[in-house]
Amino acid sequence: MLILKATIISIGNELIQGRIVNTNASYLSRRLTLLGIDVVAHIVVGDDFNDISKALDIALRLFGSNIVVTTGGLGPTYDDITSEAIARYLGEEYIINEEALREVKEKYESRNMPLTPERIKMAYMPKSAKSLQNPVGIAPGFMVSRDNFTIIALPGVPAEMEGIWENGVEPYLKRFSNRRLAETYIRLIGAPESTLAAYINRYVRGKNNVYIKTHPKGHETRGPINDLYIMVSTGQETDPSEECLKVCNELIDILKKNVEGLLVEGECICNKSL
Amino acid sequence: MLILKATIISIGNELIQGRIVNTNASYLSRRLTLLGIDVVAHIVVGDDFNDISKALDIALRLFGSNIVVTTGGLGPTYDDITSEAIARYLGEEYIINEEALREVKEKYESRNMPLTPERIKMAYMPKSAKSLQNPVGIAPGFMVSRDNFTIIALPGVPAEMEGIWENGVEPYLKRFSNRRLAETYIRLIGAPESTLAAYINRYVRGKNNVYIKTHPKGHETRGPINDLYIMVSTGQETDPSEECLKVCNELIDILKKNVEGLLVEGECICNKSL
Repeated sequence: MLILKATIISIGNELIQGRIVNTNASYLSRRLTLLGIDVVAHIVVGDDFNDISKALDIALRLFGSNIVVTTGGLGPTYDDITSEAIARYLGEEYIINEEALREVKEKYESRNMPLTPERIKMAYMPKSAKSLQNPVGIAPGFMVSRDNFTIIALPGVPAEMEGIWENGVEPYLKRFSNRRLAETYIRLIGAPESTLAAYINRYVRGKNNVYIKTHPKGHETRGPINDLYIMVSTGQETDPSEECLKVCNELIDILKKNVEGLLVEGECICNKSL
Repeated sequence: MLILKATIISIGNELIQGRIVNTNASYLSRRLTLLGIDVVAHIVVGDDFNDISKALDIALRLFGSNIVVTTGGLGPTYDDITSEAIARYLGEEYIINEEALREVKEKYESRNMPLTPERIKMAYMPKSAKSLQNPVGIAPGFMVSRDNFTIIALPGVPAEMEGIWENGVEPYLKRFSNRRLAETYIRLIGAPESTLAAYINRYVRGKNNVYIKTHPKGHETRGPINDLYIMVSTGQETDPSEECLKVCNELIDILKKNVEGLLVEGECICNKSL
């Protein structure tokens, strides 16, 4: 089974200066994971040609990603340089995309606003790019493909990024999805993570399609609470929620039998992905 | 002026699967930036030896970081492998740190809980590591240094990460801080970002210690609102808030004179960093 690998590159000084939280990376990671695509890394860099080029190289060469999604740097300001940086990295001309220009022009003209250089800038893309319509704001996204990878460039404003993703990207990526996932969360109260760990470690060993993780929410020694996360992946033909349910019930049984005073909140319910 | 460069490496499958948002990276970026240290990149990878090793290499070699802060993977579970991965990367033995063991032991014994292998695991570190006390939870952090870089490993639970940072890391890093920052936000209503961009681009050109960025909060053509961010950096001897105030007032003057219908909310107030 070929599993596609994806890296998310978030671009913007406001991110590396810690003035905003990178919710775009978690949104995109979640969507890609639910499509059965493995997200291998996030990379965040500032608005700098060299650093964007490094990030693309890391994603494509070091992590061997088939899909690279960038966010940020598509706007009208002097430091919005993502499109040009991608064009340079690919050795492509950076030119006006006619479809993108039509979209930008229409949006400004419908408000009686002229096309200035800063506005036209948002229609510049690598020569082979396919423009992606922005249903929320102005700056269009785009997609450039090679034989073994696709780079998808989206704006940094979350609502615009999500709008383009849902309209133009996810329908395209769905056809490459060849894996199904099911997952569940269940809360365990009264046992330290370090106690649960021994039983979980032993149970999960050798089960390559099963991922189990405890997320501590309380205090390890004073009132421990852990959210147990279980994810099971299978090929397209199998229903992963059955195996997920089996894993969850087996593990809860083992923990209940062995860990004194353990309280399990709720029961095993596995949700299938998209 | 030597400016230190930092990279933040966040480790955890829950991050690359998009199940949680990486607030640790923004917290650390903000703290480092306020110390006058340049954050050049964030890298997020899963709980995997190879990928952690790649991330360390990217931070140290590709981005030439002097400071690398990792978060996550210090706990008791089977997939908490950060300490061992750092030891392997540095070619150091991965052994029990006596100071860390004392801390872990004390915390469990004060609750009458025995030391199990999963609990002792949290005291394993690279041989040359200096243990960092965890004032909130159990797992200690640590620091390993070479001539030209320091790796600081912190837990992934935000409260624990912040506790160790404030107690043990920031006081240590402060002595390397040789730059001062001042910053301000001011809200601009009624002008599209693409209109402001032309004036800001021209104003900022050649001012290398001034960073200006507009953050669109409304809609570009229907009711535009932009938060203007200004950051000015100077050496230790100069007060950056004076220059910041000058830049802010000059720019607001230019914008008011040239952009019709622009409304400026509040006035220029520059805050100095730590």
